[in-house]
Amino acid sequence: MAKFVVIGERIHCISPVIREAMNTMNPEPILKRAKEQIDAGATYLDVNIGPAESNGPELMRWAVTTIQGAFDNFPLALDTANQAAIEAGLQVYDRSKGKPIVNSADAGDRITNVDLAAANDAIVLALCSKAGIPADNDERMAYLQELLERGMEHGMDPADMWFDPLFLVVKGMQDKQIQVLDALTMCKDMGLNTTGGLSNISNGMPKHIRPIMDSAMVAMAIKCGLTSAIANPCDLRLMETIKSCDIIMDNTLYADSYLEL
Amino acid sequence: MAKFVVIGERIHCISPVIREAMNTMNPEPILKRAKEQIDAGATYLDVNIGPAESNGPELMRWAVTTIQGAFDNFPLALDTANQAAIEAGLQVYDRSKGKPIVNSADAGDRITNVDLAAANDAIVLALCSKAGIPADNDERMAYLQELLERGMEHGMDPADMWFDPLFLVVKGMQDKQIQVLDALTMCKDMGLNTTGGLSNISNGMPKHIRPIMDSAMVAMAIKCGLTSAIANPCDLRLMETIKSCDIIMDNTLYADSYLEL
Repeated sequence: MAKFVVIGERIHCISPVIREAMNTMNPEPILKRAKEQIDAGATYLDVNIGPAESNGPELMRWAVTTIQGAFDNFPLALDTANQAAIEAGLQVYDRSKGKPIVNSADAGDRITNVDLAAANDAIVLALCSKAGIPADNDERMAYLQELLERGMEHGMDPADMWFDPLFLVVKGMQDKQIQVLDALTMCKDMGLNTTGGLSNISNGMPKHIRPIMDSAMVAMAIKCGLTSAIANPCDLRLMETIKSCDIIMDNTLYADSYLEL
Repeated sequence: MAKFVVIGERIHCISPVIREAMNTMNPEPILKRAKEQIDAGATYLDVNIGPAESNGPELMRWAVTTIQGAFDNFPLALDTANQAAIEAGLQVYDRSKGKPIVNSADAGDRITNVDLAAANDAIVLALCSKAGIPADNDERMAYLQELLERGMEHGMDPADMWFDPLFLVVKGMQDKQIQVLDALTMCKDMGLNTTGGLSNISNGMPKHIRPIMDSAMVAMAIKCGLTSAIANPCDLRLMETIKSCDIIMDNTLYADSYLEL
């Protein structure tokens, strides 16, 4: 199996520093966070520009060329509800270090992002949801099927569809956690790649607990078949856990220095 | 499901301090380690007196009454290759806080420890091995079957047989780790309890890596169905991980203070 893929989540307009940088098209704060995440072991960087209703295409083009220009065409996930902005980003994206990721499609209004990914030979993060949180795994897998069929109709390689079962917050949905893990196992049994916003699970927990809870979850999820996550690569405990799981799963060869690699 | 069971491994004659205390029947060092492990969250304490060929029965009786006397009949695992010593320990064991554990039987010469556990209404740790390390899961499951049949012939409740698939060292047997995890899944699918010497996996690794590797493994193993482990409860990272997995598996109810409980 391939090494676990960490999609660094820290270039996100929800952060005041990043929002300000995007508003003023100031590269510094964005490049700083990009470098931190790359140094910490990110495989991809997510670039979340938010809804970006007024200047989405322009902003995404700028972000893609700015980051790829500074970091040797590091591979990116283009993350916005504005499809035209994703399309604009794809046009300037350099794929020499990896295909672009379209973040994200779902089985509802955003299913056309599957078509966009297919038309551009991109990877798509495909949320197993339509409107709100799926009630159970029957619903999850039904949405997965809709998304998978849509992708295959448009000529996608199923390996380029990374299915997100939707990680749920423990505080309030504790009894649903095993279900999410079971959904990952079902995806693995179908030979599919998977992803998810891992840190959702620890939302609302005291700050010092979050890396502990997220790390326990990522190890369980990797065993169930999770192949990537949208996560914070600067969370040291999380990255140590992911690297150790890659050793146990035999995805990377053990060396005493494996944590530094 | 029940909370994960941690059998504290630190009262072991391999430690020079403990060996000396056992040789001289000096309670202090043993009670100190017992208290540390109980305070850190151990569910059981393993008492390993080694082969104890000369004075096994006397030594085990002393150790059991000393520890249970000091800690309100805390439940123990009686660990020695000397069957007469286990038997002697069982005779003085107070089961008001939990059944004694016989550590351990295997499908070879030590299968009579299953009979001993059955005769004394004890739990038995049952190693899925006969002579050396099982070559694959077919062999593991064949030994498990032999042990299970032996126990049932002697009237044991299968829930009191905790099967140990044998955790293997990553350095040298990296490609066997998934197999061990798969064996746990097979046990879970049969409704059986499981255990193991978890820290075997990180043998020979740099000291600072061992808690990281052990924690990643325990999370994966718990998801596969592991219900207990012989481990060091004073390893903070390991215990944090186990407690977090108990939350994710819905074995214990989440509270912001769960790590302190």
